[in-house]
Amino acid sequence: MSVATEFALIYEQIAPLAGQRDDVCLGIGDDAAVVQAPEGQSVVVALDTLVENHHFFAGCAPEDIAWKSLAVNLSDLAAMGAEPRWALLALSLPEAMATSDWLARFMQGWQALASQFGVALIGGDTTRSDRLTVSVTLMGVVPIGQAIQRAGARVGDEIWLSGSIGDAGLALAQLYRGEQPLVQVAERLHRPQPRVGLGKVLRGVATAAVDVSDGFLADLEHLLKASGSLGAGCYLHQFPFSESVMQWVRETSNPCLPLTSGDDYELIFTAAPEQSDAIQALSTELNLCLTKVGVITNTQGGVGLWHADKLLAMPKKRGFDHFVTSDD
Amino acid sequence: MSVATEFALIYEQIAPLAGQRDDVCLGIGDDAAVVQAPEGQSVVVALDTLVENHHFFAGCAPEDIAWKSLAVNLSDLAAMGAEPRWALLALSLPEAMATSDWLARFMQGWQALASQFGVALIGGDTTRSDRLTVSVTLMGVVPIGQAIQRAGARVGDEIWLSGSIGDAGLALAQLYRGEQPLVQVAERLHRPQPRVGLGKVLRGVATAAVDVSDGFLADLEHLLKASGSLGAGCYLHQFPFSESVMQWVRETSNPCLPLTSGDDYELIFTAAPEQSDAIQALSTELNLCLTKVGVITNTQGGVGLWHADKLLAMPKKRGFDHFVTSDD
Repeated sequence: MSVATEFALIYEQIAPLAGQRDDVCLGIGDDAAVVQAPEGQSVVVALDTLVENHHFFAGCAPEDIAWKSLAVNLSDLAAMGAEPRWALLALSLPEAMATSDWLARFMQGWQALASQFGVALIGGDTTRSDRLTVSVTLMGVVPIGQAIQRAGARVGDEIWLSGSIGDAGLALAQLYRGEQPLVQVAERLHRPQPRVGLGKVLRGVATAAVDVSDGFLADLEHLLKASGSLGAGCYLHQFPFSESVMQWVRETSNPCLPLTSGDDYELIFTAAPEQSDAIQALSTELNLCLTKVGVITNTQGGVGLWHADKLLAMPKKRGFDHFVTSDD
Repeated sequence: MSVATEFALIYEQIAPLAGQRDDVCLGIGDDAAVVQAPEGQSVVVALDTLVENHHFFAGCAPEDIAWKSLAVNLSDLAAMGAEPRWALLALSLPEAMATSDWLARFMQGWQALASQFGVALIGGDTTRSDRLTVSVTLMGVVPIGQAIQRAGARVGDEIWLSGSIGDAGLALAQLYRGEQPLVQVAERLHRPQPRVGLGKVLRGVATAAVDVSDGFLADLEHLLKASGSLGAGCYLHQFPFSESVMQWVRETSNPCLPLTSGDDYELIFTAAPEQSDAIQALSTELNLCLTKVGVITNTQGGVGLWHADKLLAMPKKRGFDHFVTSDD
């Protein structure tokens, strides 16, 4: 139960690549880290674990594993409108990966994303395991009382979606079939771009937000449930899909696939209709597509999918796999 | 890659048992948690992972696994003089353990310790894995500038040790041999008592501190290295050993065993000699044995073990297994 080798591993390989911040009073190397949040700010903290063969394929590039393990947490903080600052990394590594090469590549992917958002690695733990497990704790700050919550949507609010969805799900489906996804599609699965900048400017604008990790419909339902068992109507023809995803939809004749596939790490947020112009302006400012895809209703817990004036589906469950046309 | 079942698992089983604190603005159930540190305080954060078959035996009681996974992090915060407040829990569970019974027992052990220190569970993640892995992130607070660091020991400082050491190592050795340890010995391995109360009163008294997780000598060496490659002389006959550990030492003729076995979760701390009376008073106040076991020297990186006036050993490496008598 000695951790002699892990200890050396952390110090020699990771510490020099941790990144620095003035508000880190004490970083890697003590029993715990000490950080200073500014006055008037709350601390926001997320924890997400990625497990080999569950969240990424065995043999996935270490750079991508690192990127994604940080990205999914950045995405959580983005959904809160928080500014990410400090991360802790728990690595459970098979013997074969506890090499300086694997770790160097892992840290390269980590740094590439961490440096984008000024995130310093302040601590963590390395253990041996049969299966690679990467658990990241990400801390950030938000002005007191300004965190955007899932609970906050109101009937009549418009539902917005950042970027486009479905590409990560398409990449995954192709990889499962043994096909090689297009580079830009694979990138969406392996190196998602968390919407941190968007989250920050949505403070005071959005009434609620959630990130798309489980799939649009699943995550929207989390938001609806948290906001008091509300319902929603979404306009299927308005969803932002890439050309690749459009083709996937045509091939499968299943327009709901991109709404149920996960790993997109876009933001779903709700806002009062009078914020529409402001949100369009933010879209221009951030050079990020923001699309109005639906409206909050008082239908308890139901999400209706409309195409023009026709109700296409009223899925009872968020994880539904098959699309059913309905006239009701 | 959907986490439907994990989601339900967390909400239904864990959330009601999370514990509450007024400074938790937003707990389990959103993309991230939001907490409020008091003005004038820094945030202290530790992360430790326990892996089945590495840090605990397969088949270990879920209550004990939960206790220990929280305890090792509480011990880290204790070594910083911090007050623990908020925890996040990353559980990677084999299918067989994802039962309400296993989880209920796990949470029972968690609550037993968390409630002692007023720690609220504010978030986390549950994933499937072949091997049980429990990763805990523990956050706490400490007045700005008052965290006790490993770096801070000075030549001439006295070295103190809380409680007694070796029992956890003895329990482990017995379990490896297929023997059943005495209840009070096994308890030290499975349910360590983190020295949180001691850590807090050592602010401004101790010059440096570290908790004993890897073993007394290994952890002392971490402290010495962090304090600038200092050395130490320790008085073997002054170490606080239980009757069981004394017997273990006699049987093995190896008085160093309890200094190299890990998992004790006591605190090693250093203090100027003039603090001696104050520390004795703290010992009485806390009803916790605090023993002066050595002194900081300027011998770079070396720890000399003395019995009365005789230098018994001068181990070069912290993880040494065998005891060598030396007259030099």
